[in-house]
Amino acid sequence: MADIDKKSDILVGVDFGGTKILSGVFTPKLELVGTVKISTKAHRSVDAVIDRIARCVRDAIDECDLNLKQLKAVGVGAPGAVDSGEGVVINGPNIGWENVPLKKELEKRLEVPVFVDNDCNACTIGVHEVELGGQARDLVGVFLGTGIGAGLIFNGKMYSGYNRTAGEIGHMIIRAEGKSDKDNPAETFEELASRTAIFRRIKQAVKDGKKTLLTETLGEELDNLRSGDLRKAIRKGDKLVEGIVEQAAVYAGIGLANVINLLNPEVIVVGGGLIEALENTMFDLIEKNARKFALPGVAKGIKIIPSKLGDKAGIYGAGVIASRGIKSA
Amino acid sequence: MADIDKKSDILVGVDFGGTKILSGVFTPKLELVGTVKISTKAHRSVDAVIDRIARCVRDAIDECDLNLKQLKAVGVGAPGAVDSGEGVVINGPNIGWENVPLKKELEKRLEVPVFVDNDCNACTIGVHEVELGGQARDLVGVFLGTGIGAGLIFNGKMYSGYNRTAGEIGHMIIRAEGKSDKDNPAETFEELASRTAIFRRIKQAVKDGKKTLLTETLGEELDNLRSGDLRKAIRKGDKLVEGIVEQAAVYAGIGLANVINLLNPEVIVVGGGLIEALENTMFDLIEKNARKFALPGVAKGIKIIPSKLGDKAGIYGAGVIASRGIKSA
Repeated sequence: MADIDKKSDILVGVDFGGTKILSGVFTPKLELVGTVKISTKAHRSVDAVIDRIARCVRDAIDECDLNLKQLKAVGVGAPGAVDSGEGVVINGPNIGWENVPLKKELEKRLEVPVFVDNDCNACTIGVHEVELGGQARDLVGVFLGTGIGAGLIFNGKMYSGYNRTAGEIGHMIIRAEGKSDKDNPAETFEELASRTAIFRRIKQAVKDGKKTLLTETLGEELDNLRSGDLRKAIRKGDKLVEGIVEQAAVYAGIGLANVINLLNPEVIVVGGGLIEALENTMFDLIEKNARKFALPGVAKGIKIIPSKLGDKAGIYGAGVIASRGIKSA
Repeated sequence: MADIDKKSDILVGVDFGGTKILSGVFTPKLELVGTVKISTKAHRSVDAVIDRIARCVRDAIDECDLNLKQLKAVGVGAPGAVDSGEGVVINGPNIGWENVPLKKELEKRLEVPVFVDNDCNACTIGVHEVELGGQARDLVGVFLGTGIGAGLIFNGKMYSGYNRTAGEIGHMIIRAEGKSDKDNPAETFEELASRTAIFRRIKQAVKDGKKTLLTETLGEELDNLRSGDLRKAIRKGDKLVEGIVEQAAVYAGIGLANVINLLNPEVIVVGGGLIEALENTMFDLIEKNARKFALPGVAKGIKIIPSKLGDKAGIYGAGVIASRGIKSA
């Protein structure tokens, strides 16, 4: 992380979801100075959550031994459909928000310009600008975590669609059962390849009497299971966990193949908490299957890469959003 | 079709595929004056096929009692990946073409400016401009026929991706079998919802001893089966055909739901030969399932409409491409 003195301008990027608020302090050149993470407490009132976001911004600045007066702008990646022009969270099902004027409310609390976009868009902007230097014309960022989301950049610009919800790739159906089509049971990308899907399968396997090293440390219920536990178990030779993670990676590859066939982007970046924890087990299988299930010729020359920003992609992107916001103002 | 006198300027739009070449003569205001259809003879040499395209253009003008000297420009929708800037068919697997400089070759033969794009793009441009008056900012055209293809308009502009193959929606996997993931058998949109899929299922059902009115007129092998035969059979109460067509419509709805979740376009237009023949049986089911399988909220306000241009969408779009080409030259 960068050093910075007490007279320099700073930006803060905030990534917030149903569980946590992460704030990062950036130099104007988008070097990360420091971060602070607090829980969202999404069950509290909308006002209380906005207070917590403002507090997380102030705490991050204080953590870096900097001063609130140095703050020039804040960028926020928020979960759900976001009107980035007005800075309104139109609809955030995870946190129960509807038509929340987040920009206005945060500007009241922080007294600097605030710019808001969707969280997956922020991650994608972060990867595009910070990792790829803005070079890819068409980029799809796919983020695997508790759920699965995507951000789309077409012709160098964020694409958000009619209801500003574009990128809901987690809900793409990739396993529709044909038996009784009238009430078609159908499984989505998220139900097959997210961390939630992997955890569910492991827990089911344990109930079915299968053996895994995970129960030795976490007990039969696997209550506090985390992605990192999977990585450790696989490293110790846990075949059950490895098989289930690999199965998810195959489905993730199919999801990416669908993106390649439909959108033929120059670059697909795969990120999110699951990839951060399990890149070694998952990434090669994801890429292999993406290329296998894409049309020959169509995938040619397309780059499929893991994001190196990990769970910091969101705050980096929010930092970029803050920086662009004050430049265009 | 419009009347036009022998002094007016005209444009010709050509839609060509593996089977047929269709040419339409247009006024500068894009009113259709007349059409001519000939077969492609794709098994002949590339030069021979280009000669046939040129002939089809001349024949259409002659058919309308007009003169080649009135021709100002030609637009072409060609199957496969097309470099629309250079007018080169990079790769057309259906017709066995690779790096064919179609623009240059047709300009040599016709002595007017020629502009080339992908056939599904041409259909989408036709629908966008002629049916919707260019009003939708983000539009996805999905065309159901022998295969299934799509054209994508984002921010009012055609989007074609890195290898200029964007829109290969027919190859999107929507029914991946999970049993043996390592060599995952997976069915695509096209394998579940195209005319080819419907014909295959009907033929299989007949082999399995199921009854259909179709065999009364076409024989047990159903050799000359066409979309129109399905429409007639359904109208006469053929439950086998109706059930199979409805099943394809459900899968088509799932394909559209995936588009809605991922791209959230303002408008989805459904066209192609299958919809032209079977709109009454298929369209409502397609729309119903598209909305059922899309995320709540995400599909809100999105228009899903059948194209009224039918199999003329391609020539209309090619006419638009010709018109835009000479305006921007």
